[in-house]
Amino acid sequence: MTDDALFHGLNSSGDCLALGERALELIRKIYPICRSITGDGVRETLRHVARHVPLEVFEVPSGTAVLDWTVPAEWSIRDAFIADSSGRRIVDFRRHNLHVMSYSTPVHARMTLHELRPHLFSLPEHPEWIPYRTSYFRANWGFCLPHRLLESLPDGEYEVLIDSELKPGNLTYAECRVPGTTREEFIVYTHICHPSLCNDNASGIALTTILAAELARHQPRLSYRFVFAPATIGAITWLARNQDRLSLIRAGLVLGLVGDAAPLTYKRSRRGNTEIDCIAAAVVRDLDPNSRVVDFSPYGYDERQFCSPGFDLPVGRLTRSPNEAYAEYHTSADNLDLMKPSALAESFLAAARILARVDSNPRYLSRYPNAEPMLGKRGLHRGISRLTPRDMEYAMLWLLNQADGSHGLNDVSAVSGLPESTLREAAAMLVSAGLIDEVHGAPALDHPAPEHENR
Amino acid sequence: MTDDALFHGLNSSGDCLALGERALELIRKIYPICRSITGDGVRETLRHVARHVPLEVFEVPSGTAVLDWTVPAEWSIRDAFIADSSGRRIVDFRRHNLHVMSYSTPVHARMTLHELRPHLFSLPEHPEWIPYRTSYFRANWGFCLPHRLLESLPDGEYEVLIDSELKPGNLTYAECRVPGTTREEFIVYTHICHPSLCNDNASGIALTTILAAELARHQPRLSYRFVFAPATIGAITWLARNQDRLSLIRAGLVLGLVGDAAPLTYKRSRRGNTEIDCIAAAVVRDLDPNSRVVDFSPYGYDERQFCSPGFDLPVGRLTRSPNEAYAEYHTSADNLDLMKPSALAESFLAAARILARVDSNPRYLSRYPNAEPMLGKRGLHRGISRLTPRDMEYAMLWLLNQADGSHGLNDVSAVSGLPESTLREAAAMLVSAGLIDEVHGAPALDHPAPEHENR
Amino acid sequence: MTDDALFHGLNSSGDCLALGERALELIRKIYPICRSITGDGVRETLRHVARHVPLEVFEVPSGTAVLDWTVPAEWSIRDAFIADSSGRRIVDFRRHNLHVMSYSTPVHARMTLHELRPHLFSLPEHPEWIPYRTSYFRANWGFCLPHRLLESLPDGEYEVLIDSELKPGNLTYAECRVPGTTREEFIVYTHICHPSLCNDNASGIALTTILAAELARHQPRLSYRFVFAPATIGAITWLARNQDRLSLIRAGLVLGLVGDAAPLTYKRSRRGNTEIDCIAAAVVRDLDPNSRVVDFSPYGYDERQFCSPGFDLPVGRLTRSPNEAYAEYHTSADNLDLMKPSALAESFLAAARILARVDSNPRYLSRYPNAEPMLGKRGLHRGISRLTPRDMEYAMLWLLNQADGSHGLNDVSAVSGLPESTLREAAAMLVSAGLIDEVHGAPALDHPAPEHENR
Repeated sequence: MTDDALFHGLNSSGDCLALGERALELIRKIYPICRSITGDGVRETLRHVARHVPLEVFEVPSGTAVLDWTVPAEWSIRDAFIADSSGRRIVDFRRHNLHVMSYSTPVHARMTLHELRPHLFSLPEHPEWIPYRTSYFRANWGFCLPHRLLESLPDGEYEVLIDSELKPGNLTYAECRVPGTTREEFIVYTHICHPSLCNDNASGIALTTILAAELARHQPRLSYRFVFAPATIGAITWLARNQDRLSLIRAGLVLGLVGDAAPLTYKRSRRGNTEIDCIAAAVVRDLDPNSRVVDFSPYGYDERQFCSPGFDLPVGRLTRSPNEAYAEYHTSADNLDLMKPSALAESFLAAARILARVDSNPRYLSRYPNAEPMLGKRGLHRGISRLTPRDMEYAMLWLLNQADGSHGLNDVSAVSGLPESTLREAAAMLVSAGLIDEVHGAPALDHPAPEHENR
Repeated sequence: MTDDALFHGLNSSGDCLALGERALELIRKIYPICRSITGDGVRETLRHVARHVPLEVFEVPSGTAVLDWTVPAEWSIRDAFIADSSGRRIVDFRRHNLHVMSYSTPVHARMTLHELRPHLFSLPEHPEWIPYRTSYFRANWGFCLPHRLLESLPDGEYEVLIDSELKPGNLTYAECRVPGTTREEFIVYTHICHPSLCNDNASGIALTTILAAELARHQPRLSYRFVFAPATIGAITWLARNQDRLSLIRAGLVLGLVGDAAPLTYKRSRRGNTEIDCIAAAVVRDLDPNSRVVDFSPYGYDERQFCSPGFDLPVGRLTRSPNEAYAEYHTSADNLDLMKPSALAESFLAAARILARVDSNPRYLSRYPNAEPMLGKRGLHRGISRLTPRDMEYAMLWLLNQADGSHGLNDVSAVSGLPESTLREAAAMLVSAGLIDEVHGAPALDHPAPEHENR
Repeated sequence: MTDDALFHGLNSSGDCLALGERALELIRKIYPICRSITGDGVRETLRHVARHVPLEVFEVPSGTAVLDWTVPAEWSIRDAFIADSSGRRIVDFRRHNLHVMSYSTPVHARMTLHELRPHLFSLPEHPEWIPYRTSYFRANWGFCLPHRLLESLPDGEYEVLIDSELKPGNLTYAECRVPGTTREEFIVYTHICHPSLCNDNASGIALTTILAAELARHQPRLSYRFVFAPATIGAITWLARNQDRLSLIRAGLVLGLVGDAAPLTYKRSRRGNTEIDCIAAAVVRDLDPNSRVVDFSPYGYDERQFCSPGFDLPVGRLTRSPNEAYAEYHTSADNLDLMKPSALAESFLAAARILARVDSNPRYLSRYPNAEPMLGKRGLHRGISRLTPRDMEYAMLWLLNQADGSHGLNDVSAVSGLPESTLREAAAMLVSAGLIDEVHGAPALDHPAPEHENR
């Protein structure tokens, strides 16, 4: 319970079911929107988010250099279809926005099936599903459709329309900031560029929103930044614009794909053994023995950018099925049917616990490092507490002994065998008595390298 | 045998039985004395010690600031009793000094049982035993008595006398110094503040005395300081007064509770993997497979002060039952019946071996680090020795190869598989030949962290 | 295959059989020569080597100070025998050069068997074999003979002749240099001082020669120095004369005793976990599960000098039976019968693979360490390759992520699970695209200490 103090008593997936339902409601609202890495779909999505949390929206002009990249032209689309010779819309963007390859250039033409064929994408292994395709950085157009439909198309002429536009505009992203009592920051990052795909990543957008909303009701120690931005180019843009602030980042979590039935997966940061890696691994294992803790790889979502060798930030990733690890990934089958309220609830609980534990994982520096300070003259010797006097004294002695600025409360708990709640209460008394001070800013030392269980 | 060269051939608990008996004799003499953290009981105890070893006694005035603490007033007691209405002494300090809470303020009054009751301490779970209580830093008075006696007291009026005094005086501690051929120091520390408790710590005082006496008959390499001082405030006083000399400490051992039947316990230093940790762990395991090697915790005896984060010295602790781990702990049952001569003998052997192995664990620096020096021209090639020529040559080659100033002889033995005795003989020849020099002062590098077997 | 790119497709012991046969031919030619640590036997041996590879021969005058040693007088021998009273040569240097102790001082005398006896050496446990004895640094003379012959000698007078000479001359060694495209060096070292002993070390001389000859047909990245020099004094001389160049040494291999039937043995460098230790251990285990990887010890061949504490170079040793670990070691039974063409072939393959893998184990530094560089605009996004696009993209992402100058390609392969061949191809594309640069000169970081399997 104390671990989740930040969220006041979230203790089980059950307690979070209402929050999971709220996330699901939001998923239902944003699922139909046609998002891409730029454009009005993103803006409309952020308006939904902004109904739950205060949001600062940033617009970065096309053409802006961001590290090795350039913000692309803004894409908008009004309509798209393939019609047969009778004028009947066989493939219709209005029925499913996955039908159009994202960033398709405009086209309006009549052509034979043979001419059209190179622009048609389907999944032979899942003949009923529409695949999800993009062509952000190479001019192209295309339609995605069920393979059975593709197979059934008769030869002949078709009318093809993509009423899209690629023109100078902006890349849109947003931040919800929850200031804490310290300047150290925790970053939660979720990608907002995928159209009608539920798990990837309406679920992440919704869960991040609810998490931010819940957090904002409390007073955290760390300062939080919830970043809603397109994948890759969004993370790169954010990093480029925040380079001088990265040293404030105590830890971070990339959040996405959090609504399906698969067990939780925590992916370690590149350094593999930072504070959040230790804490998140413990949290997900504690919630579900089937949960997975996997090593970093430079493939996945935006942890790739945070964990590039130059930044090498302590940022991990929380998903359920990782990308590509479920059949419905990047298809029209990644829809509302895939969403499990209990999974959303558990994902919320896991993320909340990770935040809460990092938030309440202070490091201390003793003002009396040489020999033990005298507890008695400060009224601390077996002081009054709801704890047994003995436990309280043990906790104080361990804290004083480990208060060299490098050990988090989680480390003191591990070495002493005492629960963090006991240590936290003891630490508060020691701080009040002027014996130890909380350390901010200095990075926690890395821990011994973990066993590499999964790769 | 070579390992115990310092003590000339102490090789088994059997060899040490006479020494164990000498320790037991001394225990018998000092057991009845009423000691506390200050006062004449400490001085009388030290006079007994001084009959065996040269002792420098230090008197530190009350009120002296020592780190975060202040040396308290000196306590003395002449008499104390509870008498019933008939004048009969029901509880009598003259019968057992545990009857009076240590540092009791003076009192002489008649009072009802009801008024007296808050000042009476007993052990319901051991109705025949007198508990041991202190109130050093909070003015109070009290009597300790068997629970059965407490239960049997009739209502009525009692005469209560504690003829004690708390006034400016001194904290008394003593050092026995055995100079070695180098300035590096080994500290053996034992606490002298407990009254009639045998294992805790008449046994430690006596064993430390006999150990110092035996050592003084030989010529050690390191310089030894055997410190007899009260627990906590004594260690803090000693550390405060010796801060500028701490860099000379090569290793140290807190010695106490060494006479009971439990197997040996070595408690690692805070760093956990220093030279003495490796050596002491090997010694106690070698003596008895049931012996325990436990990790550091900031609870126990004066290793807490030596291993505070600011000092962080390579000081471990040797006990049999650790504090609180035996039923008789801090009760009148911690008496002479608990003392086992064979246990005292084994404790002596363990401590002596630890000292001897650290004493004879030189580190070397080669004068010829680049390629092998020529052994032949120095008459060392398969030199004359009681060892096989081959073993001697191996030992020389290993020593020359590892003579980079960071490896102790114990490390060379571990990596080479050669016995320390062989390496010692080879090292003497290499030193004589001017090929290597013994390194002093530079701290031995820590070893890889140990497996944490017990916590 | 890619691993052996340096040698164009050596993939199995089978492929190397012809090379093993060429080594065996050379062994047959140099086996009969009477070598010692100096003298014409060495020069004649080097003339044989020089028929295969360009060789620079160095002559270092007797009396030259080399580190702690001095180059000894040069030894030459024309004839030696023990003749019986009838003038019959019972022991004849012309029949086997092992009959004379190497560096024997000249003698011509008639003496009784009793007088002769202290100068006769035999092997009672192998009565048919001639032992190999030397006395380089102590003036002495001696004959080695089968024990059965020694036993059969009748009392009486014998004529003893050793027509040898010890006079100022030179110590001879040679280098075959194969320049690479970088200045970083790989050292292959083999000892050339043993007379008619096949495995020790006609096999090493021959294999090193064939290895150098094969390598010289290709264009390596590293620069290679194949050093043919006497054991101990030769290595010390070479190190003394090359001290200012040692910082160029990327890795090295002492090669010898490579023709017998025992499985391969790789002996780690003193540091135990350098690049060549990781690579060589993998190579020998891959070739034969019975192969052994053993920790460094300061006993053996010239790895002792390279791995002395002052130099501490990343130099390992490749043998089959290590010295002394086979019955025929240093006896006349170490003859051509012991040579196995398949063993020579496998030894060649192991050495070639070790060289090839170190040669092609670049470290990279990213020019775009902050976030991922954009692959698409450089035509690298799922670029054209014979690899699947996905594997190529994974390889690029891993390389970019690990391109911090400290990871060799072998490390990237280990952490990513991708084959080195894939990574190599991807790296070439990234270098071409100007995204990463190969790092030279900076030493590869050591890896975590290995499990110590064998000592």
